[in-house]
Amino acid sequence: MSITVAVDCMGGDHGPRVTVPAALDLVRDRSDLRVVLVGLDDSLRPLLGSAGGGRVAIRHASEVVEMDESPALALRNKKDSSMRVAVDLVKQGEADACVSAGNTGALMAVSRFVLKMLPGIDRPAICAVLPTLKGHTHVLDLGANVDCTPDHLLQFAIMGTSLVAAIEHRDRPTVGILNIGEEEIKGNDVVKRAAELLWESGLNFVGNVEGDGIYKGDADVIVCDGFVGNVALKASEGLAQLLATFLRQEFSRNPLTRAAALFALPMLNRFRKRVDHRQYNGATLLGLKGIVVKSHGSADSLAFRRALERAADEAGSGVLGRISERVAQRQPLRETA
Amino acid sequence: MSITVAVDCMGGDHGPRVTVPAALDLVRDRSDLRVVLVGLDDSLRPLLGSAGGGRVAIRHASEVVEMDESPALALRNKKDSSMRVAVDLVKQGEADACVSAGNTGALMAVSRFVLKMLPGIDRPAICAVLPTLKGHTHVLDLGANVDCTPDHLLQFAIMGTSLVAAIEHRDRPTVGILNIGEEEIKGNDVVKRAAELLWESGLNFVGNVEGDGIYKGDADVIVCDGFVGNVALKASEGLAQLLATFLRQEFSRNPLTRAAALFALPMLNRFRKRVDHRQYNGATLLGLKGIVVKSHGSADSLAFRRALERAADEAGSGVLGRISERVAQRQPLRETA
Repeated sequence: MSITVAVDCMGGDHGPRVTVPAALDLVRDRSDLRVVLVGLDDSLRPLLGSAGGGRVAIRHASEVVEMDESPALALRNKKDSSMRVAVDLVKQGEADACVSAGNTGALMAVSRFVLKMLPGIDRPAICAVLPTLKGHTHVLDLGANVDCTPDHLLQFAIMGTSLVAAIEHRDRPTVGILNIGEEEIKGNDVVKRAAELLWESGLNFVGNVEGDGIYKGDADVIVCDGFVGNVALKASEGLAQLLATFLRQEFSRNPLTRAAALFALPMLNRFRKRVDHRQYNGATLLGLKGIVVKSHGSADSLAFRRALERAADEAGSGVLGRISERVAQRQPLRETA
Repeated sequence: MSITVAVDCMGGDHGPRVTVPAALDLVRDRSDLRVVLVGLDDSLRPLLGSAGGGRVAIRHASEVVEMDESPALALRNKKDSSMRVAVDLVKQGEADACVSAGNTGALMAVSRFVLKMLPGIDRPAICAVLPTLKGHTHVLDLGANVDCTPDHLLQFAIMGTSLVAAIEHRDRPTVGILNIGEEEIKGNDVVKRAAELLWESGLNFVGNVEGDGIYKGDADVIVCDGFVGNVALKASEGLAQLLATFLRQEFSRNPLTRAAALFALPMLNRFRKRVDHRQYNGATLLGLKGIVVKSHGSADSLAFRRALERAADEAGSGVLGRISERVAQRQPLRETA
């Protein structure tokens, strides 16, 4: 079975010079894939060369959504943007998934408008993978929803566990809810009520997870509202950069430390590779009737390739069907509640 | 001028065998300090030796607040706990500040009950120092208040900037509000309204700071609600542990990497020292009519000493007067609002 991924080639800080090579590179390595490169024909064609044979197509789109453009205006005015056309291809069944490094808000708005939500899901959530001491974990929402009800958090849990079950072929992934452990309070009312719903949900719920539990690997899936999730993710990015900077400074302090760095280089490089955030690039917009993956705007070609791989893997996993099934299963629970 | 710090010696995971040596160590180095060691006389006296001369006193307290004890019960039933007596000493003017590594919720409840809030401040906030690319930043609240109003966030900003101004002798420290940058949303209503108040406040407000801005050093003071702050702080701790573990694993992989580690050891040690979270131990409970510093429960003697130093520095800084002044200044602003 061949999988087709539509690529918004114009999105992101670097546009086609990153997105096109990444797509061609991936198609070269995976014979089960086709890509449709969406964007300004004139910008894309020169980058194509003789690559890909029948598995690389170009779809012209005359407009580009800018990184700082208002999502509402992008949705209303740019019906032939590379982003919109890539999502349209998924809607029309010409692609199994799409990937964009463009404006997150615009991608959310366009995807929701074009694809619509799965039945029983109120809003899309942004789900990404983070490294842990035990392997990795999926966290959602990372910024799509600033104010969430307990039921939204339950929906996130259903979507997240369905995704992990589908992609990693695991029966009952564990799910936790992000909370704080201070004795006097133990979380706000929304989180407390969401935890009650989760205990009753039939999911493999493990209860509260504190901030450090994300990286300890306390659960396969961790749910939180988009404000908290976004702050936690960005704070982590900031800290990782700080530590990398400090480490570099210590090893480049003087000729002696630079010499020692040569000896340490293989280990430092392996370490760097292991925690390389590019490996974790590609956040899924879950809850839509179609697979949409958001790449980091600043992604380089290696990072963008990872986002494309994620989209391809999800397209082949049957995740949407699984979410729908799970949501259908919970209806009786809600009616008796 | 001599400063007296009351030390809850029974609190924390390790109790007197960490708290007492840390206090004695600090008194030895700083001749401007006195400490009152509070706790079970039998536990403390054997650890004292001949240390401190007239600058170390013991105050017997017959009870101990357990780490997992309910704050309400600790407040009601343990009137002779080491924690309570240490805070009482501040109230009675026998100490200029107190430090505890005990149960956070209980320390909050006891401090609030005994010391009361400063006029114009509704709730205490937990404020800690974090390292940044430019030096360090103060973040509050880190877990005392899960639900905050815009006015609470403004109060946090007043308290945080007053603290930095008093301790670091800086005229107009910058203050930012933690927010998310996703295009569609840009934060929830509380944060938006708080930002409006901050622009009007006369403080040196720099606007929104995203999660990574904490470690970039985007502001001297960053305010957020306690749920978000706590998750961000704990997530950072978790990530730092993850990275340290990975780094250690790479350097201990085989005899060759272990040999290389020897060459790299000075740099790795300097790096470790630079990012050592123990250096940042000691969170201030701001907003009370007295100085209370909370040490991490798992603090070792070096970390606990840092918390004691923080308490001593704040006691000598006139921070409480400065907060009161600032709050008084804002009254007209509120009335015209």
